[in-house]
Amino acid sequence: MESAKSADFLAATSVVRRTDTPGTFDSHLSPVWGTAEGIDGGILLAVAARATAAATAVRAERFFPSSVSAFFLTASRPGPVRIHTDVIQRGSRFTTTQVSLTQKTEDDREIERLRALVSHGTLASQAPVHTPLPPAITPPSACIARADAPGGTAKRLGHLAGIDIRLTPECAGWAFDSPSRTGHFDGWFRLANGRDPDPLALLAAVHALPPISFDFGRVGWLPTVQLTAHIRGFPAPGWLQVRTSTKALREDHVVEDAEVWDSDGELVLQSRQFAAFV
Amino acid sequence: MESAKSADFLAATSVVRRTDTPGTFDSHLSPVWGTAEGIDGGILLAVAARATAAATAVRAERFFPSSVSAFFLTASRPGPVRIHTDVIQRGSRFTTTQVSLTQKTEDDREIERLRALVSHGTLASQAPVHTPLPPAITPPSACIARADAPGGTAKRLGHLAGIDIRLTPECAGWAFDSPSRTGHFDGWFRLANGRDPDPLALLAAVHALPPISFDFGRVGWLPTVQLTAHIRGFPAPGWLQVRTSTKALREDHVVEDAEVWDSDGELVLQSRQFAAFV
Repeated sequence: MESAKSADFLAATSVVRRTDTPGTFDSHLSPVWGTAEGIDGGILLAVAARATAAATAVRAERFFPSSVSAFFLTASRPGPVRIHTDVIQRGSRFTTTQVSLTQKTEDDREIERLRALVSHGTLASQAPVHTPLPPAITPPSACIARADAPGGTAKRLGHLAGIDIRLTPECAGWAFDSPSRTGHFDGWFRLANGRDPDPLALLAAVHALPPISFDFGRVGWLPTVQLTAHIRGFPAPGWLQVRTSTKALREDHVVEDAEVWDSDGELVLQSRQFAAFV
Repeated sequence: MESAKSADFLAATSVVRRTDTPGTFDSHLSPVWGTAEGIDGGILLAVAARATAAATAVRAERFFPSSVSAFFLTASRPGPVRIHTDVIQRGSRFTTTQVSLTQKTEDDREIERLRALVSHGTLASQAPVHTPLPPAITPPSACIARADAPGGTAKRLGHLAGIDIRLTPECAGWAFDSPSRTGHFDGWFRLANGRDPDPLALLAAVHALPPISFDFGRVGWLPTVQLTAHIRGFPAPGWLQVRTSTKALREDHVVEDAEVWDSDGELVLQSRQFAAFV
């Protein structure tokens, strides 16, 4: 049984500094944040970002994860994970850190799960020059939640107990055997326990909607190979609006973008991932 | 005086394996491929990709750079550059390598210029499911070349002697003090010496057009902090069509996307960069 604590995003992504090796941390991956295929990539990115923040000892009230670029090397499993950090640049506006997540196998070998580069820095404060408004979509109350989906597809609509996601009716056709084939999903995201979003929670929003390949009736699993996210603002309280889209879907791979706006209509994150059968 | 050899893309990005340290290579950055602000980022990515290909000893006829994700730490200068590689994963479809570019300062300190993760793999061969056609734009012969630009702005239209770029008349307004403010540039790219494009040349195309901030009359320099490129196909011979765009431009930073199509209309590269005053 997993406790309510496991479903709390902050608790699930916490790291503990190891005293034996500088720049090394421990965390624990709960099965709540995963599927049979592995632990959710957004959670892994957040764990990596929390470790790199601790490693650079940045002042949390001013510095946030800014750009996170990760290669997913092998599927992560529930259980202990070790985080190794190496600060490679300290600047006045950004620090850049290399980070690696590893897990022990049953026969005690250390396997690398993820290698990433993470910068922390000050977020947007300067005046916008060109920042288009988010698309007008159906409000969360009229969208499809996991509980609304037909039985067989409910699991696919969202595998994470710690988050609350909603899809617009126009984009939920795939769950009713009628995929829209538009190449984008619109929806909403919030943490399930009512906690307001912060820059780290944005990393969970990136992976929360169904894979965009579902919009073309392809409900198989395409593991993420590479994901880069740029966080551009501290999100306002409330729902996050999410659009995922693709311009490059083939039978064996996809390049999928995500855009996240806060409740003030500010674009607070842009991400892109490359997913492929490997 | 720089020779014709310096303006050849393949010659400019060649690397030589060092025998004293495994996985280490030397290259030489020509001022032809730079500006006062530093060497072009696309060239640096191509140098990194050539070194990682050599380090992994991948069969060049089957494996190509697939995802390249780099942090630009300090501005690169003309002259010798050392490339350090570390292969972190060997799979049947992808290999992943960490790479670092360093240069010596005048007082003999080694400064890191770029840290990147590069995967090499097989490119698109599976059937497309959703791959929209490129936008219909003015053909190269009716576009604006560097030679067509007014005197004061000619330098800005393209700083690289080794490439030939064209901007559509609709997108070249900034060069005539009349920026279009649409948030995108359309144009064409080819290597200046007539060499047909390959996956490496795509990395040069990413950075070739003017910064998208120019489209809003902001012709100052925003250095690239992070750039990720996904190469999805081996380009057909001929011109490459390029679109750059932004949805997030502020006074002090920009997130800029690039899409590159080959002469068959295939989307062969998607990239995104975060550029900011640091």
